[in-house]
Amino acid sequence: MTYKANDPSLKSWINVPKDSDFPIQNLPYGIFSTDKKSPRAGVAIGNFILDLVEIQSAQLFKELELPERIFDQPTLNAFMDLGKSVTVPVRERISELLREDNSELQDNDQLKDKALIDQEEATMHLPIQVGDYTDFYSSESHATNVGTMFRDPDNALLPNWKHIPVGYHGRASSIVISGTPLRRPNGQTKAPDADAPSFGPSKRVDFELEMAFITCGKNELGEPISTKDAPDHIFGFTIFNDWSARDIQVWEYVPLGPFLAKNFGSSMSPWIVTMEALEPFKVAGPKPDPEVFPYLKFDGNYHFDVNLEVAVQPKGAEEKVVTNSNFKYMYWNVVQQLAHQTINGCNIKTGDVYASGTISGPEEGTYGSMLEVAWKGTKPVAMSDGSDRKFIHDHDTVIMRGYGEKEGVRIGFGEVRSEILPAKEIK
Amino acid sequence: MTYKANDPSLKSWINVPKDSDFPIQNLPYGIFSTDKKSPRAGVAIGNFILDLVEIQSAQLFKELELPERIFDQPTLNAFMDLGKSVTVPVRERISELLREDNSELQDNDQLKDKALIDQEEATMHLPIQVGDYTDFYSSESHATNVGTMFRDPDNALLPNWKHIPVGYHGRASSIVISGTPLRRPNGQTKAPDADAPSFGPSKRVDFELEMAFITCGKNELGEPISTKDAPDHIFGFTIFNDWSARDIQVWEYVPLGPFLAKNFGSSMSPWIVTMEALEPFKVAGPKPDPEVFPYLKFDGNYHFDVNLEVAVQPKGAEEKVVTNSNFKYMYWNVVQQLAHQTINGCNIKTGDVYASGTISGPEEGTYGSMLEVAWKGTKPVAMSDGSDRKFIHDHDTVIMRGYGEKEGVRIGFGEVRSEILPAKEIK
Repeated sequence: MTYKANDPSLKSWINVPKDSDFPIQNLPYGIFSTDKKSPRAGVAIGNFILDLVEIQSAQLFKELELPERIFDQPTLNAFMDLGKSVTVPVRERISELLREDNSELQDNDQLKDKALIDQEEATMHLPIQVGDYTDFYSSESHATNVGTMFRDPDNALLPNWKHIPVGYHGRASSIVISGTPLRRPNGQTKAPDADAPSFGPSKRVDFELEMAFITCGKNELGEPISTKDAPDHIFGFTIFNDWSARDIQVWEYVPLGPFLAKNFGSSMSPWIVTMEALEPFKVAGPKPDPEVFPYLKFDGNYHFDVNLEVAVQPKGAEEKVVTNSNFKYMYWNVVQQLAHQTINGCNIKTGDVYASGTISGPEEGTYGSMLEVAWKGTKPVAMSDGSDRKFIHDHDTVIMRGYGEKEGVRIGFGEVRSEILPAKEIK
Repeated sequence: MTYKANDPSLKSWINVPKDSDFPIQNLPYGIFSTDKKSPRAGVAIGNFILDLVEIQSAQLFKELELPERIFDQPTLNAFMDLGKSVTVPVRERISELLREDNSELQDNDQLKDKALIDQEEATMHLPIQVGDYTDFYSSESHATNVGTMFRDPDNALLPNWKHIPVGYHGRASSIVISGTPLRRPNGQTKAPDADAPSFGPSKRVDFELEMAFITCGKNELGEPISTKDAPDHIFGFTIFNDWSARDIQVWEYVPLGPFLAKNFGSSMSPWIVTMEALEPFKVAGPKPDPEVFPYLKFDGNYHFDVNLEVAVQPKGAEEKVVTNSNFKYMYWNVVQQLAHQTINGCNIKTGDVYASGTISGPEEGTYGSMLEVAWKGTKPVAMSDGSDRKFIHDHDTVIMRGYGEKEGVRIGFGEVRSEILPAKEIK
């Protein structure tokens, strides 16, 4: 598919800094508010947000026949629920309005004054009401690293791993927007040589570098979504930090999987970059070996060449980049994940979150968690203030960023940034 | 706590059949519609539903100062969200209006005509918008039976089981109301002696007899709910059939837990029986051994003496009761489950579902799944039509019922009934 809005030659009448994540070719959606504006939908362009409520009020979406006040809502769910036959033309129209050769908005000073908000004056909100949240486990290097550390280096991947895009259900309520601090979780842990478990703050809080896709539309219970139809249900992507407490996880996860080790919080970047904006960054993934069942086969490319980095910033110190990875380092891709999620008839809804699982590349320096970066604590990572890290300390801020770049166009995600606060004292 | 509405001597001016689940001491909430009425809140009394929209319109809740049209909604979430300081007085007031010595409604023929609906003329709907869904694993006999069958009879319980109310996150979107048929799931399975997995309809579809509690109110992310405060957040209970595909589960569940084996559907009974109505049925649970961490200690009793049964009905045949269990057969109770869910700061919301896990008693005849009843297929169960069952066949209907009985008062849950349809053909 080609979209006019992706044309690398497009330029906006709004000045977009060269290193911005948000050129006219991106146009990601978010929910923002200001002192004077209630939470509503906007699109990022350079250092500004385009207020879509104002654009609709000014009749600039008139020909698209959108429902009234579709953007004047605290989440994007109602808009996303309209489906791609509506949301794709909306993106194309926004692109048109922002082009240097278009005067409709450019020459309307009164409207520009109302509709363009400096990002620094806005507060971003979680852009969706989350339905269900699934976390996959789809990076071969990550699964291999974990299997090597905790099980058997010679049989690091479990027998099902190359047949099934392994995943599990996570907690929707505790998905929070970038900037929300999270408390270090309390919980039960048990050292391998201890007779009994202990209770207290986790000593092994870790980030997991992931990408998440957000769904639009639904299927009826009992009706699978094929890999062919899956793209119609993928509205867009965010960066996703699936916080994990490794010591709690090890004690609790047999036989039903991770629970309290994960559900104390997951952090999401505020802008949803559409599937369409990522079109130029599609690349082929690894050849499946062994062959997969027909329901997991697909045409086209659904891996994405998106550079990712994670930085850790101790309180009062400079940040330090601890890993550089890429969303292309996946074995299972997004259409396989959605086809698998629904092959048994499971129903999806607008606003579900499907996270990739930790994205690790094949080499040191590309791993997506502190567990792997510091290799189970054996290779501590030096911080900018001279301290080192095996896992995340209190008051550390973890920052994840990502972008694709091609033909001089950089499509970025903004960042997801979250501070770990000390554990709550439990009496 | 004692509630006037629970007084066994109360009688209603509405005729309640002797074996009804819904005497005046119960008053469970549901969402119903009729040909003329849009989905709205009602309370079951005998064979009738009291339409709470009509009662509020007639000013009979006037002194409670409820929000306008709080019952004129397709879910109970907004009502439950008002909290127990409101919902408990509402129950007491409904009880008062239905008492034989109260004339307010009894003598108002016009209002009675509008406000009392024959249950047979109503369609019941899922009574809540489900937030998150957690499934626990809290029956010792069930965990022991499963451990005995699949692992080691001498070490059937895993080391964490008596320290942690083990649980995992399930799928909220596929929770459906009684009466909704479900398709047999397709999926990957692998026989122990097979070289590679196969794909096709599950051959081991099973019920799981569970009770679920529904939460009201919320906690802030990072702030645990203690066992002492937990009852304020438990609005009420339903019977819950956590459908499972055993063969899919065995192949997929390592290391992240059950996923497609469970999320094709879970079935819920339509009436939410309040925590207050179950007060008379509270009983002591087993003594914890070993001692639990302080956050899992509690005062009072939070096990419930509720008789449970499961019947299987082949198409066109009589139903056959295959097990008789009881909600009291739990090791971990509901306040421990909620305290555990939140001890790491995980936040809950109004409308979350927390299921008990399969409820099995200590003896044959009291097990809560076909896996256990037919002991992994070694003891097939005879049906009324002469066929037998190891697991559930296409077009079988599974029916679960439950009630507590004390001092001549029977507090029942109605039933959850669901038919398994043949698997969808996958091309």
